[in-house]
Amino acid sequence: MIPPDHPRYRSLVTRERLAACAREGIVTLEGLTAHGRGEAFDYLIGERTTESAALAERVAAAMLIGATSPVISVNGNTAALAAGAIGELQQACGAKVEVNLFHRTDERVEKVRRLLESEGVKVLTGRAEPLLPLSHPRALCLREGIFSAGTVLVPLEDGDRCAALVSMGKRVIAIDLNPLSRTARTATLTIVDELTRAVPAIARACREIGPEEGERLMRFPDNNFFLRAAMEEIRGNLGALD
Amino acid sequence: MIPPDHPRYRSLVTRERLAACAREGIVTLEGLTAHGRGEAFDYLIGERTTESAALAERVAAAMLIGATSPVISVNGNTAALAAGAIGELQQACGAKVEVNLFHRTDERVEKVRRLLESEGVKVLTGRAEPLLPLSHPRALCLREGIFSAGTVLVPLEDGDRCAALVSMGKRVIAIDLNPLSRTARTATLTIVDELTRAVPAIARACREIGPEEGERLMRFPDNNFFLRAAMEEIRGNLGALD
Repeated sequence: MIPPDHPRYRSLVTRERLAACAREGIVTLEGLTAHGRGEAFDYLIGERTTESAALAERVAAAMLIGATSPVISVNGNTAALAAGAIGELQQACGAKVEVNLFHRTDERVEKVRRLLESEGVKVLTGRAEPLLPLSHPRALCLREGIFSAGTVLVPLEDGDRCAALVSMGKRVIAIDLNPLSRTARTATLTIVDELTRAVPAIARACREIGPEEGERLMRFPDNNFFLRAAMEEIRGNLGALD
Repeated sequence: MIPPDHPRYRSLVTRERLAACAREGIVTLEGLTAHGRGEAFDYLIGERTTESAALAERVAAAMLIGATSPVISVNGNTAALAAGAIGELQQACGAKVEVNLFHRTDERVEKVRRLLESEGVKVLTGRAEPLLPLSHPRALCLREGIFSAGTVLVPLEDGDRCAALVSMGKRVIAIDLNPLSRTARTATLTIVDELTRAVPAIARACREIGPEEGERLMRFPDNNFFLRAAMEEIRGNLGALD
């Protein structure tokens, strides 16, 4: 339907993919709008992995392979756009994968789980309990998953839930294109990069990093540094296009 | 449903309106994503009509009233959010209104037409022909509408189609919150403002501007000036948020 020679082909195909997943009930209408907001920030960042984001991805990899029980928290948009890459990352770092939805229903959890499994992801299952300091049903998670994790990777997370995880003493790695968002400012480490660029980059870094580099990177999760770098990128891009 | 004193009342009502129109098939799911992108840029611009945008709106008004056969090209999102305002603008400047959809089907064209007519817009009808230098079905437009127009107002237009119109020698006025978009950079004049603020402002200006001011404004469609001004606004806002 979208001509492959359209200069915004990739962005349009991504939008179609999300729309198809919305029709299937995997992505919500709110998820579509949220994706659009991310698109805008990706535009401003230059639709590429910046140097600082590439460094953040290596730090994230070090945090994941250095953690005792890391968990990747996956929502509808993440599953729709990056199920295969999440599977790759799981293999590379040995993390558990838990489905965790903002607009949670058992039916949607099941749909997201099935999509992930169809792309080779091993998904944690069990009875979700209200274990997070949030109002029901957003408090729900698995005891042996997010609740017990020391380090959680939350791609595309809501600010409230990111804050809840941090308040429980967890190290939270967020992937968020908006360096001004509450999620970005609350997380232990924020990767300001687009999901489908970030997840494979973290997986690659997991396979590359030796113990010594891992140690070194682990000392460097200065979130403010990464947020400031992203804002500088945006300001620079706005200037360069004058 | 949404309390009118909610700080994000306007933005939430707009989102609900678009979601309702998506369920009716007037807005596409891709259109919801595009709206989210606009929301992010509107946030960065301060969710208000900047001084430079207000000037661009006056220039646009002068261009429309000075044109021999102006056309307003309306898509699903524009109809959903601003059908009444488009009617007002049509009355103020005497432009033809043509439905022109990125994801075009006869059924959607009909739905958008009916919505516009219910708000008092006179919509051009006829047999669309592949007259634009784009691949089918995006090449479709009306011979006595967009094809013959010297000046076209395209709120929320795709970059490709904007470029196609410019390549045909038309003066294109775009309304686009992203000053970096291809549409914004390709148009003859870009109004970097939110649709429901911009369209009534152009209509007001059409009624206010006398022939002398019109002449003066017509000499001032310096698109780069307006794009630079918008970028400066965003840079200033990002700086303030550091």
